[in-house]
Amino acid sequence: MEYNTDVAVIGGGPAGISAAINVYLRGKTVTVFTNNYKNSALYKAKKIQNYPGLPDISGAKLLDGMYEQLNSLKIPVIKTQVLSIADMGKGFYISAGNDFLSSRTVILATGAVPAAFYPGESELLGHGISYCATCDGMLYRGKKVALIGMTDDSAEEANQLLDIGCDVTFISPHLNTEKLKPGIKTLKSGKFEFKGEKKLKSLSIDGVDYEFDGVFIIRSSVAPDLLLPGLEIKDGIILVDKNMQTNIAGVFAAGDCTGKPNQIMKAAGQGQIAAFSATALIDEKTKA
Amino acid sequence: MEYNTDVAVIGGGPAGISAAINVYLRGKTVTVFTNNYKNSALYKAKKIQNYPGLPDISGAKLLDGMYEQLNSLKIPVIKTQVLSIADMGKGFYISAGNDFLSSRTVILATGAVPAAFYPGESELLGHGISYCATCDGMLYRGKKVALIGMTDDSAEEANQLLDIGCDVTFISPHLNTEKLKPGIKTLKSGKFEFKGEKKLKSLSIDGVDYEFDGVFIIRSSVAPDLLLPGLEIKDGIILVDKNMQTNIAGVFAAGDCTGKPNQIMKAAGQGQIAAFSATALIDEKTKA
Repeated sequence: MEYNTDVAVIGGGPAGISAAINVYLRGKTVTVFTNNYKNSALYKAKKIQNYPGLPDISGAKLLDGMYEQLNSLKIPVIKTQVLSIADMGKGFYISAGNDFLSSRTVILATGAVPAAFYPGESELLGHGISYCATCDGMLYRGKKVALIGMTDDSAEEANQLLDIGCDVTFISPHLNTEKLKPGIKTLKSGKFEFKGEKKLKSLSIDGVDYEFDGVFIIRSSVAPDLLLPGLEIKDGIILVDKNMQTNIAGVFAAGDCTGKPNQIMKAAGQGQIAAFSATALIDEKTKA
Repeated sequence: MEYNTDVAVIGGGPAGISAAINVYLRGKTVTVFTNNYKNSALYKAKKIQNYPGLPDISGAKLLDGMYEQLNSLKIPVIKTQVLSIADMGKGFYISAGNDFLSSRTVILATGAVPAAFYPGESELLGHGISYCATCDGMLYRGKKVALIGMTDDSAEEANQLLDIGCDVTFISPHLNTEKLKPGIKTLKSGKFEFKGEKKLKSLSIDGVDYEFDGVFIIRSSVAPDLLLPGLEIKDGIILVDKNMQTNIAGVFAAGDCTGKPNQIMKAAGQGQIAAFSATALIDEKTKA
């Protein structure tokens, strides 16, 4: 198996950034996958008081500084959401939008647990429900789709579906409709339920059924066990040992996705440990 | 029991500082005990590359900044080495030089494992061997003492013994004799062994015996299980669970003293978790 990178870091918050810097400094190659960090809750934090060495810094300034650090070390950052990770036994294939990359090891730093699934969602995923407009949009050209947007930039994904030629309805609890292109309909957010037998038939909002050929759900992160099947999870938390090793060999996790407290310094510290564990494993394997 | 502080943090490196800041921000009182941080290995580090947010910072600049942060939050820092911690069941008494303080909880952040004991040391501790010139110096007034100095500022402790009226011999692997007052003899460092039955008789250096009434050993930190009897330790490492709780209720640990990797970010992250655990315990107890 050929590898594009020694370590793939999934997530570009403090845990992922700390992991990436430490992998780099241990002489291994590393690639970071992340959403737009400027949409994160941390970026919007006005004042952080408990980051030793940087008193009263804003989340924006802290994250901007961390990304400058990544850039100065020339660590590649791919700004696309990772959709799936395949365990090939000797390594991993990571699929993110149109990007595809092979890696010796993986560090999951995907952040706090995403919201629970809607009823019917996991059953109909891939059968009318998709998490990626870029990947699956063309399948619904000329058809009626809804996009449930849970992130600030999901309006752009709705616009993309319109450009492809879909009949698009945008649904969001934020309803940031100002960025939507004309021609996109909107519906008020509510209690969702997906209906259909083996194939999506309708989306029910607060008990009212709306028929769609496809529904796109855009969240800030995909649940880690959907991302990487077989990953051991409990109450939405990735289970790790003290070296941040998950139940899958070669896969480590760090930060909020491994449990509370959801705190920057703790996340960064765990990212560092995960980096050390991943690089130690690579050294061990490449030596043998 | 009356408490001088909710949390006593033993150690003023990144783990201790992070712990202290986080305790403070959770609305509890905190006191930090530390040696002079300017003598630490971290302070002398020329360039730290893996501190997210502060690229290529020197150890001195990083630590100075962290101490400024402690000062700006008005967190009390006692610059004396802690010599013993007594578990009173409902709290702890901390003895540090002439300072004495009671605390609801303790966070141990004492740094990397101190060097192993010299032969005979643990048997004769308190019977001619002492770790504290300030505390025990007067017992040896007019007598012949040696001071084994393993820290940069141990010459000052030797001077103190001279001032008290001891006959002082200074022994150090660094042999920073320039700070020693005239009248202090020196001996070359070597392989040490303490001899005596129930009471110190002599100190052997490389097989040559020298008679002393007392020997002071000044290290950067006291072994944690000597500091707090009953503390569970394995290979010099304080055993903690994932909440940084030790085997003693109310005692937490963070940083290098809980095991490798000895890294700043990991230490600071653990300090944060220890702070959260300690404050949660206090909340629970004071509520009940």
